[in-house]
Amino acid sequence: MTELHLERLPKTIELNEGATGELRLRFVDQRKLPYELALIETGQWREVIDAIKTLAIRGAPAIGLAGASALALWASLDGREADHQGCLRAAAEISQARPTAVNLMWAVNRAVEHAAELEGADRAAALFHLVKDMEEEDEARNRAIGVHGARLLQPRSRVLTHCNAGSLATFYYGTALGVVYAAAEQGKIDCVYVDETRPVGQGARLTAWELSRVGVPATLLCDNMAASLMAAGNIDAVIVGADRIAANGDAANKIGTYGVAVLAHEHGIPFYVAAPTSTIDVSVANGSLIPIEQRNPKEVLLKPLEGVDVYNPAFDVTPARYITAIITENGVFAPDALGV
Amino acid sequence: MTELHLERLPKTIELNEGATGELRLRFVDQRKLPYELALIETGQWREVIDAIKTLAIRGAPAIGLAGASALALWASLDGREADHQGCLRAAAEISQARPTAVNLMWAVNRAVEHAAELEGADRAAALFHLVKDMEEEDEARNRAIGVHGARLLQPRSRVLTHCNAGSLATFYYGTALGVVYAAAEQGKIDCVYVDETRPVGQGARLTAWELSRVGVPATLLCDNMAASLMAAGNIDAVIVGADRIAANGDAANKIGTYGVAVLAHEHGIPFYVAAPTSTIDVSVANGSLIPIEQRNPKEVLLKPLEGVDVYNPAFDVTPARYITAIITENGVFAPDALGV
Repeated sequence: MTELHLERLPKTIELNEGATGELRLRFVDQRKLPYELALIETGQWREVIDAIKTLAIRGAPAIGLAGASALALWASLDGREADHQGCLRAAAEISQARPTAVNLMWAVNRAVEHAAELEGADRAAALFHLVKDMEEEDEARNRAIGVHGARLLQPRSRVLTHCNAGSLATFYYGTALGVVYAAAEQGKIDCVYVDETRPVGQGARLTAWELSRVGVPATLLCDNMAASLMAAGNIDAVIVGADRIAANGDAANKIGTYGVAVLAHEHGIPFYVAAPTSTIDVSVANGSLIPIEQRNPKEVLLKPLEGVDVYNPAFDVTPARYITAIITENGVFAPDALGV
Repeated sequence: MTELHLERLPKTIELNEGATGELRLRFVDQRKLPYELALIETGQWREVIDAIKTLAIRGAPAIGLAGASALALWASLDGREADHQGCLRAAAEISQARPTAVNLMWAVNRAVEHAAELEGADRAAALFHLVKDMEEEDEARNRAIGVHGARLLQPRSRVLTHCNAGSLATFYYGTALGVVYAAAEQGKIDCVYVDETRPVGQGARLTAWELSRVGVPATLLCDNMAASLMAAGNIDAVIVGADRIAANGDAANKIGTYGVAVLAHEHGIPFYVAAPTSTIDVSVANGSLIPIEQRNPKEVLLKPLEGVDVYNPAFDVTPARYITAIITENGVFAPDALGV
């Protein structure tokens, strides 16, 4: 059985009260990993928006927490004198930081509702306590996802994952990697194959780092190598996270997820999506309606080449028919039976 | 109709006689592209072997020419006094530079047979003339591949390619990109989508450079983005090269090709392999028998991460059932009807 060191993982993002009562958000600067574990601390809500936009904070559940935390920072500093209209304006600015992960809007809306009747110091205090509750809930949900998901894996499983749906994508513990950690504690994980996840490298930089820190055997590969591993019979299951799941079970996740799902389907390998129910967007009937963020071409090609365009969507949509099951904190569901 | 500037492409590799009769091989250093077009010139056969190993020269037809040229350089300098056994030893060393592309063995064997009865200056002269013939044949074959392949494309085609099977992979003109050039001259190419082709980046560095130099509209993407383009209906055909084609039509090509083929199949998009008949290895019954080169992990992850392994095969095998047709200089064939 693998000896795990989950205590070596930092809290990814955490809101705290400073010595003089002011709110401070501390988060891992994920742009610096894997070679440096750097923490950023700020009391400025717009710095949090920048951190979301520049991927210092990323991962759907983590940017949800970042969004709610940003509103709490606003309430405790810039928004101390503002009324509810001001709160709505700040919330709108935060919600627009990135378009695809519904957890951001979900968390910010929850914070807005929580603060609707309050102003001044009361509002800031209420939002602080809400965020602390959300942090705790996040970890609890992830551990529940882990328990439910681990039941789906056989002993000595070789799991492929894409992007980072790990502790670094959440407050702590992770969704897809939460399943891996829970299964590893039961001796069910032989190794995790990690897609590097171009262009930003969340697999190579974050998932590989996280797994090695915890002590789960990890093998890194380029995204285009997963098919050959599947053809060789070396993958038993694919587990990924999600940024938004439509009512019909279509799931948006990091660009490249859809291709992995098609390949898994072709090779008869189960393909699991692990995500909290806050990732399900009942207002969206199917995946074609999920907005897909287009990012800067420089992520793909640092120095432009004359006459060469760049295509750089941050996400794609995996149709429900390629998803074996969706693992949530409430249990495991067929994608067409989410009950929403 | 696109105005093409094929004259802007250099000869990728060319053997010449120096002023005093010694042989010199000049080739594009493909490690320097796309930001620098650097030429290397050498009279040393082992420098050519190094160039093949380090990917300064790459692409199955080009390394075939490099192999025959290396033997000619050997014959004209180090091997001047050697007998046929010495020639066989040099040939074996050259053939082992890389294991997957059969064109290397094919070209070196052809050179050995050509020189079997000769020694000294006669052998060097015979090999020089053979290589000059092979260079000419290479371009003629590529142009024939282009003519045959262009017939398969509809007007305003959006073509996806993986790796570089362009002029840079051959003496001149290219195989998969030869089809693109021939089709573009007929106004049939809307644009070419270029997989960046991790880890070495032959798409981002070589294909994108080559297309922009010639004036074919090119859009670069990360390998994991091709599936979303296919799902959006933006790809009309996939055309790739090959490093070795087995007798049953299974084709080894750059890692990632197999995944693209599965995705094309799933989306009903034709998947074409363009290669000269010298890439067909009748001695290999099927793709599982093609040796696959494993390369240095540093290509994937420059600075190792403790506890993280790296999987880095240079090639994968696409089973014949995923290949719509194989385009050779002799025409277009179903993969199970190569007639070998």
